[in-house]
Amino acid sequence: MEQDGGKITVTIVGGGLVGALSACFFAKRGHKVRLYEYREDIRTAEYARGRSINLAMSVRARAALAVVGLEGALVREHGIPMRARMIHSRNGERRAIPYGTSEQCIYSVGRKYLNEVLLTAAEKNPNVELYFQHKMVGGDLSKGEINVEVEGSKKQMMVKADLVIGADGAFSSVRKQLMKQPLFNYSQTYIEHGYMELCIPPKKSGDFAMEANYLHIWPRGNFMMIALPNQDCSWTVTLFMPFEQFKSLDTPQKLLDFFNHFYPDAVPLIGEDRLVKDFFESKPSPLVSVKCKPYHVGSSAIIIGDAAHAMVPFYGQGMNAGFEDCHIFDNLMTKHKNNLKKALEEFSDYRNPDAEAICNLAMYNYIEMRDLVNHPSFLLRKKFDMFAHWLMPNFWIPLYSSVTFSHMRYSLCIKNREWQDKVLHRSMYFLSFATILGISAVAYKCQDTILNIYTSMIRSAHQYF
Amino acid sequence: MEQDGGKITVTIVGGGLVGALSACFFAKRGHKVRLYEYREDIRTAEYARGRSINLAMSVRARAALAVVGLEGALVREHGIPMRARMIHSRNGERRAIPYGTSEQCIYSVGRKYLNEVLLTAAEKNPNVELYFQHKMVGGDLSKGEINVEVEGSKKQMMVKADLVIGADGAFSSVRKQLMKQPLFNYSQTYIEHGYMELCIPPKKSGDFAMEANYLHIWPRGNFMMIALPNQDCSWTVTLFMPFEQFKSLDTPQKLLDFFNHFYPDAVPLIGEDRLVKDFFESKPSPLVSVKCKPYHVGSSAIIIGDAAHAMVPFYGQGMNAGFEDCHIFDNLMTKHKNNLKKALEEFSDYRNPDAEAICNLAMYNYIEMRDLVNHPSFLLRKKFDMFAHWLMPNFWIPLYSSVTFSHMRYSLCIKNREWQDKVLHRSMYFLSFATILGISAVAYKCQDTILNIYTSMIRSAHQYF
Repeated sequence: MEQDGGKITVTIVGGGLVGALSACFFAKRGHKVRLYEYREDIRTAEYARGRSINLAMSVRARAALAVVGLEGALVREHGIPMRARMIHSRNGERRAIPYGTSEQCIYSVGRKYLNEVLLTAAEKNPNVELYFQHKMVGGDLSKGEINVEVEGSKKQMMVKADLVIGADGAFSSVRKQLMKQPLFNYSQTYIEHGYMELCIPPKKSGDFAMEANYLHIWPRGNFMMIALPNQDCSWTVTLFMPFEQFKSLDTPQKLLDFFNHFYPDAVPLIGEDRLVKDFFESKPSPLVSVKCKPYHVGSSAIIIGDAAHAMVPFYGQGMNAGFEDCHIFDNLMTKHKNNLKKALEEFSDYRNPDAEAICNLAMYNYIEMRDLVNHPSFLLRKKFDMFAHWLMPNFWIPLYSSVTFSHMRYSLCIKNREWQDKVLHRSMYFLSFATILGISAVAYKCQDTILNIYTSMIRSAHQYF
Repeated sequence: MEQDGGKITVTIVGGGLVGALSACFFAKRGHKVRLYEYREDIRTAEYARGRSINLAMSVRARAALAVVGLEGALVREHGIPMRARMIHSRNGERRAIPYGTSEQCIYSVGRKYLNEVLLTAAEKNPNVELYFQHKMVGGDLSKGEINVEVEGSKKQMMVKADLVIGADGAFSSVRKQLMKQPLFNYSQTYIEHGYMELCIPPKKSGDFAMEANYLHIWPRGNFMMIALPNQDCSWTVTLFMPFEQFKSLDTPQKLLDFFNHFYPDAVPLIGEDRLVKDFFESKPSPLVSVKCKPYHVGSSAIIIGDAAHAMVPFYGQGMNAGFEDCHIFDNLMTKHKNNLKKALEEFSDYRNPDAEAICNLAMYNYIEMRDLVNHPSFLLRKKFDMFAHWLMPNFWIPLYSSVTFSHMRYSLCIKNREWQDKVLHRSMYFLSFATILGISAVAYKCQDTILNIYTSMIRSAHQYF
């Protein structure tokens, strides 16, 4: 249904971070929202262990939260700023690599807390109704219809709205319906690594057991471990490695030998008993990257967040991109005066290249974080980028900064980096060529000719950048 | 079930080209085969128009057919050899570009005829039972079970075998079951072009209206038309262009104007009336490229052919790759003495990089056929490759020849081409450098120094190739 300025009804599938935020956005516009989540209410449920990676909040998520008035409560009051990566070597050495300038940082925020605040904020608005333990089991998206089954009962009911929003994550039921559309492009790629969450408890004094304002990384080539600080001064530790390797650690002794060899400084912080207990009580979870196109069906359904573009967690942008989806869609609703057809079409076209770009960047960072971060050439480039950025802050924006500290379209972040690589590559080329010419000039005593070549090189250099 | 040397039961889903050939292979080994096809028997059905692209048979399919004793009947007696592409320019000029040496050719074979011969050959073997209008509607592949529904009835029956083979094409029902497996990688990509089949009838004399032993191509940049000869001296013409462009030709006049502008020499051959009739009676069909991994479930199910790796038809390798799947799987059954677990695992691991390689090559050829084929640099490279191949037939095998006229693994065909590109690129680089040095030597009168550099360059050149 296309409405010009009028109010519409919205069904949101999924009450995770993006679904809950989306409810806030639509309710704020005065639309009527019904949200269906198949799990129980996270605010009253037991603590859901093993679901907290990827919550490093940066400017994209913050900007979206600011629109619905939640940035202060969630980020400035609750988030723990992380200003740098802290790289742990096997020999116990640590080295900080800043994320950006001294003012820039990302924020560690607990997934559960964030989800709770968003659900409560949504529920406060009289336009919003939340239904937990209601599972989508089918529907006809082209008519804005979904079928919902209440947990425990076998009874289904049909829910109809002007717009269905699929914010139901990487294994989205709404997307499954989209897959029946003709010409729907889709890919799902599992990486060979799984992840498992462990925990570093607070010190006896109640303080953090490591320096708090860092994202700690133990890069080990083909595998790695990271740790993010929590409000209660504990750390959520995440171990990433190939499933095969998880499988090979099949006795407590093997596990401890492995940890003492690769993460010796972490063992006393986690505690041997807790390490063994947590490791053998859990199973590694898979990591999937999902791309698809288009995101919408006619003027009646759209997928956002992980449902549209699940990514591996190595750029810390999964939630940021999902929140930015809500923000962008809100702007499009304003731009197109609530004309759903136009807003949905533009969202698909505009957002797809950016979503695919950040999926690709996250996959690339999967290698960077566990391996490259240890290479001198990587560190040299980081230093050069920081220096150039300090010298020309608006002209030379390093890739990480453009993704994390700017609102530049993700696809442009990649193009910007490609342009930087080209400039650097050609500068090297020019420099080498000039050096060879210089040496030739001295050797063959024909400085005048060479000087002429230099002059014309410099004159024409601008063409190459 | 793992059997060493024993006989097994096989369920094949899909009675198209690959399913029927697969039945021949398994029956020949003495296994018991039941094949289920959801369409009616193609041998008694009305002519299925619009399903004949991609049947250019080359050595991979021929080798597979030879094993089951069908190569003679199908290729040498029935196929029409095509020795070159015949490129039609807009101004009526034609130019032949050979596929390989003067002895090499590909064969145009009718899909319907081929399918009929394969089904009949399979049925002749007492080990094979064929069931048409039986549709797979689900199942548990890990137990070798599929559920089958007979057309017209709502009754389902469960069929159990040691091995389920999914040879049910690009939209495979068996693959849909595989998608439920954890860690299953999958992608489906539709291109923005659709295709539509037209027809050039025989001349009144009963002869071919164009030179028979060619694959005719009308490349027009962003779209193209091709024609393959049929046994009855007609031509199957296939028009490839963006769906938008199909849509824009919405009146007979627009269609004729378009054809007279872009394919003037084809209009009198097709006939204006027939062109208008066929065009407006059909709808363009989509083209999809499918990649996935792994191809098997435990020791009880596998997908082959388009079900595992549907590709766009621009390399003419869809059927060739599918038949090669049957051939490779047969060899693996021999190698592993009918141990299904080992054969299935090795098939997945070994075949996946090759299947993805030919999917990528087909996608690349989508650009080459409609556009590059008109570029001087493309033609120059083709000529160079042909010359180098003539000079060193075992050392320098052009990409097209390695794919079409050899049994080289598809993934190696790409690596081989990359190596050739590197050699050519570096040769150019060396040549340019040597020329500059030569000129410098004359200019600065220091021939001796330069001669020394030359000598050491040549000495170290082998390192770079």
